[in-house]
Amino acid sequence: MTSDRFAKLDAEDPLAGLRESFELPAGKVYLDGNSLGALPRGVQERISKLLQQEWGEDLIASWNGHNWIDLPRKVGEKIAPLVGAAPGQVICTDSISVNLFKLISTALALRPGRTVVLSQEDNFPTDLYMAEGLAGLLGQERCQLRAVSANRLLSSLDEDVAVLMLTQVNFRDGRLHDMAGITKAAQAKGALVLWDLAHSAGVIPIELDNWKVDMAVGCGYKYLNGGPGAPAFLFLAQRHQDQVTQPLSGWMGHKDAFEFSPEYQPAAGMQRYLAGTPGILGMAALDAALDVFEGISLDAIRKKSSALTQCFIDQILARGLPGIRLLSPRRAEHRGSQVSLTHPQGFAISQALIERGIIVDYRAPGIIRFGFSPLYNRFTDVDRAVTALSELLRDQDYLATRFTNKAVVT
Amino acid sequence: MTSDRFAKLDAEDPLAGLRESFELPAGKVYLDGNSLGALPRGVQERISKLLQQEWGEDLIASWNGHNWIDLPRKVGEKIAPLVGAAPGQVICTDSISVNLFKLISTALALRPGRTVVLSQEDNFPTDLYMAEGLAGLLGQERCQLRAVSANRLLSSLDEDVAVLMLTQVNFRDGRLHDMAGITKAAQAKGALVLWDLAHSAGVIPIELDNWKVDMAVGCGYKYLNGGPGAPAFLFLAQRHQDQVTQPLSGWMGHKDAFEFSPEYQPAAGMQRYLAGTPGILGMAALDAALDVFEGISLDAIRKKSSALTQCFIDQILARGLPGIRLLSPRRAEHRGSQVSLTHPQGFAISQALIERGIIVDYRAPGIIRFGFSPLYNRFTDVDRAVTALSELLRDQDYLATRFTNKAVVT
Repeated sequence: MTSDRFAKLDAEDPLAGLRESFELPAGKVYLDGNSLGALPRGVQERISKLLQQEWGEDLIASWNGHNWIDLPRKVGEKIAPLVGAAPGQVICTDSISVNLFKLISTALALRPGRTVVLSQEDNFPTDLYMAEGLAGLLGQERCQLRAVSANRLLSSLDEDVAVLMLTQVNFRDGRLHDMAGITKAAQAKGALVLWDLAHSAGVIPIELDNWKVDMAVGCGYKYLNGGPGAPAFLFLAQRHQDQVTQPLSGWMGHKDAFEFSPEYQPAAGMQRYLAGTPGILGMAALDAALDVFEGISLDAIRKKSSALTQCFIDQILARGLPGIRLLSPRRAEHRGSQVSLTHPQGFAISQALIERGIIVDYRAPGIIRFGFSPLYNRFTDVDRAVTALSELLRDQDYLATRFTNKAVVT
Repeated sequence: MTSDRFAKLDAEDPLAGLRESFELPAGKVYLDGNSLGALPRGVQERISKLLQQEWGEDLIASWNGHNWIDLPRKVGEKIAPLVGAAPGQVICTDSISVNLFKLISTALALRPGRTVVLSQEDNFPTDLYMAEGLAGLLGQERCQLRAVSANRLLSSLDEDVAVLMLTQVNFRDGRLHDMAGITKAAQAKGALVLWDLAHSAGVIPIELDNWKVDMAVGCGYKYLNGGPGAPAFLFLAQRHQDQVTQPLSGWMGHKDAFEFSPEYQPAAGMQRYLAGTPGILGMAALDAALDVFEGISLDAIRKKSSALTQCFIDQILARGLPGIRLLSPRRAEHRGSQVSLTHPQGFAISQALIERGIIVDYRAPGIIRFGFSPLYNRFTDVDRAVTALSELLRDQDYLATRFTNKAVVT
């Protein structure tokens, strides 16, 4: 493919104009939106107003006057249609880690007698760690983590499994689980399902309601572009609400927080999944960032995402680059919006790419991740990334002298 | 006292210049810094740089390049001297509610065989709720909340008490506990102490190390002025560190988060009290807000705080305002930096004061809270508040027709 051909794809891209909604570093190709989404222009205006008018001028009155108190619900409801959830089932709060603790506890309470949290051993680590933390607190007789390889997940579903906890798109290789099929299989064995949508919300059409998903968590700072450490979200299907409480029962989840009653009485619905006072700066940034999605269908986003990753893979494979292996699935329907390549000198290559303005990241062992965010990435970005990688691999001396092949800190 | 006398007190106030470090609403007297601190000017600049340069331009590289990853530790260390803690014992993370869960769990693990969390029945509700949540999860045989009246606290200390959990300054009446004495008494009975510093950090000299306090939590958005829902902080004395884990064992508390190991191994020291990815916007705002404290002693802050509240109380009592009762302790050494008055028409009065630009808040039953933040409040603010209240109480018809006497939402 010639450079003209990539430019033509951009010219034909119906989502191309969305790039203008973001601040992006001049001259660089940012392919790490799977880790930290770019800055939407609307966020700066929103935060500026929040500081000057809401906090600076109106101060305490803003909890009601600017509706800070309602932000967890409001932002949750903005996320809901992006993940196929009807209103009243998503709330924005805390981190994924903390929200997993709430939901695993909920799952155990909803499935009395069952003690196992079944997961995948290469799930994102915090998911496993939070289940370990709960198991350590409750003791093995009440909670155990069973982490197995992906191909043993379905055969490991037995009558001890309270909840199957999986991440839809794997953080290392970008492989996409069949959420509908796995959910059905787990529920047939009496288990609940808890999906982590960190690497899929905002970039893949998800049908939580249609697929009868029980629970989910997701990330505000990847494809939703809410900013570094943006608050996470939490989904609990309507049919499971108001059945049990959750243990992080802070005052914001009380049915009447401002009654200041000494006894906890859980709020109805999703509000009981709130714990402490919400962080308004982070939540307001996410609120503004979500406006970029207004009027855009997830199908259109997915279509562009698949085209970007497929185009990247096709070009890489066509060039037969020495030492490079495709770790992600070759077929678009089996992967998320990232492409992972491996190379024995993966770390050195990732650093050299970054030096040349192609922003990727590295995960041991030897994995270079190229994340494509269809709201702002272009087909010409694919071209530049492939070209830079090809040139680098021809210059092995440069790599050898310039970098050692070790892991980065983040 | 004449108005001249108040102006003279301001002219003689060595901290008067600090007011210039804050954005304050023109023409108003803000007396709710005990609920939400005012906006420090430095925050706007910091957040503007964070958005434009760090997130917008440097993106993912900022986790190391601008040291986002170290913010929880760095901000914790900035708070440490304000609460009398040597380095390595304070970390900034999550909310007070979530941090209480971590520390109560830690306390139970450090005191095996003891099951009771002893607290005060009019503690701030979230403190009680979090203990209730843990008790509900673990079952009464492993954890129980025992909430008693303030005068029964010491007599309720028995060999079942794992931890005595108290808030140093009561949110309703502003009463100050004797932290040193109570800590000693509880420890003599084998219990640990967990202090909530929400209404005292940044406004009262606290000596966590000298008083041998075991654990503490505190708030970023009251007297530390970190902004709405700013992250909280958590203190654990060096001698208790690395003994046990805490159940919210997210990836940021792992000893090597970026190793992405499937097994949780807790980091040494305070880092294991981190759970998920920190919210960088909120934490950076708090980081910048704390710079106001540089070079200012807590003794000087306390001296001014006591003078402001005493001056207010003296003026109120001297005027003998009808129906007004002083709820807070009359002696400065027994109260924090707020003065609570009661009146049968407390809600109506609080709303009328707010309409006249005196920003206070209301807590049922009938309590009007006047919070004095010595970094920006003035003696002339005391004058204006007292004058406004006096005028209002002379105009009972206005109160009766303009407001109903009910609780506000927040």
